[in-house]
Amino acid sequence: MRDAGVVGVLGGMGPLATVDFLRKVIVATPAQVDQDHVPVLASSIPQVPDRTAAFRGVGESPLPALVASGQRLVRAGAGLIVIPCNTAHLWFEPLADTLRLPMLHLVDAALAEARALAGTRARIGLLGTEATLASGLYTGRGRPGLRWLLPTDTEMARLVTPGIWAVKAGDTAAATALLRQAAQALADRGAETIVLGCTEIPLVLDMALSPVPVIDATAALARRSVAWSLEQVALVASAA
Amino acid sequence: MRDAGVVGVLGGMGPLATVDFLRKVIVATPAQVDQDHVPVLASSIPQVPDRTAAFRGVGESPLPALVASGQRLVRAGAGLIVIPCNTAHLWFEPLADTLRLPMLHLVDAALAEARALAGTRARIGLLGTEATLASGLYTGRGRPGLRWLLPTDTEMARLVTPGIWAVKAGDTAAATALLRQAAQALADRGAETIVLGCTEIPLVLDMALSPVPVIDATAALARRSVAWSLEQVALVASAA
Repeated sequence: MRDAGVVGVLGGMGPLATVDFLRKVIVATPAQVDQDHVPVLASSIPQVPDRTAAFRGVGESPLPALVASGQRLVRAGAGLIVIPCNTAHLWFEPLADTLRLPMLHLVDAALAEARALAGTRARIGLLGTEATLASGLYTGRGRPGLRWLLPTDTEMARLVTPGIWAVKAGDTAAATALLRQAAQALADRGAETIVLGCTEIPLVLDMALSPVPVIDATAALARRSVAWSLEQVALVASAA
Repeated sequence: MRDAGVVGVLGGMGPLATVDFLRKVIVATPAQVDQDHVPVLASSIPQVPDRTAAFRGVGESPLPALVASGQRLVRAGAGLIVIPCNTAHLWFEPLADTLRLPMLHLVDAALAEARALAGTRARIGLLGTEATLASGLYTGRGRPGLRWLLPTDTEMARLVTPGIWAVKAGDTAAATALLRQAAQALADRGAETIVLGCTEIPLVLDMALSPVPVIDATAALARRSVAWSLEQVALVASAA
């Protein structure tokens, strides 16, 4: 059964980021009762090879595991695929080619909100995995370009990367301290807003803890997913 | 692909309770990296007719929608089905007959923890929907029996039912106030522990806010689901 507006979530990278995304879908939905909420299928199969290691060429490709997880959503009747993991978007195009369902791009959702909040003249900080930064996933995508400010190699090695891994290991206190320092360093160098470009980061660093306003890529994708679903349901209703 | 240990979550009743269950699965798993976590598929399709209305005979049966949602999980390759909604367990047996996958019963998971924490001599309070209470879902299940203490009709009408609906409508503050009063009333009448027998309730009433220790049925089911998954993976590993 492929009901209208069923959002398929290709998750598990990490599992807590998937839960955060699902919660943000609910928060982004105008609803009074259960039945008002958006129908969602989630495949949270965390046995996906490490994305950053694969980008560096030192680990196996996550693509076969991503395809297998996405095909579970196809078989279950999803009408859309979204991936609440920034780094996994390095494999977005081959995934879209294989799964043959509409997909929303996490980075496009975040960039649209960054452009609306900060404009193209403000300096925008970016926090993400090594692979997200080194691949230009954000900095190379979208026109007009934005004025990016990235962490230094030292900040990546001492703060950002260990902060992300601390989230995955469930060490929230350590993760908050590390990522807050990384955000402060970007703000000190002139960042007027910071894009949280790894879905582990908003789990521990939110608007209240950041020295400057943040763009939460997870929330941006959640809002787009809800809009897609409500639109599909309205289309079916108007056709009936 | 039916990989070992894939937990299928038949959810959406309500969606936030499903997210709470998924989070509790993660918390209950010993893990340092993404790949250590339990593989989970979730079907959170909230378009399921109201369970309490159906029990009263004034609404359509939720069974066809529950079967359809469960079949999505079967097609996606789940090896187990669990349902993070107490009231939906009134349709547990016909669901199990149709889906033909192993299922864990939420009430059995909660009763085992209640028995271990409070024993069979302590008085145990119960909070849940009208249908959960009136059907004897808890009070009629399992031997040896427990010494139950239920909310009065007035407490159900003024505190418990509106509290559960306030959770579904996202009004956390109102829900907390109402359900805390209901828990206090049970404690005042001698409840030594309280079973949170509706998955909306632990979203707003936890150990810290309750006047006596609580049994969180959602967490109990999450722990059993993780144990099932890890056992399946170990079985496959030992056979290899």
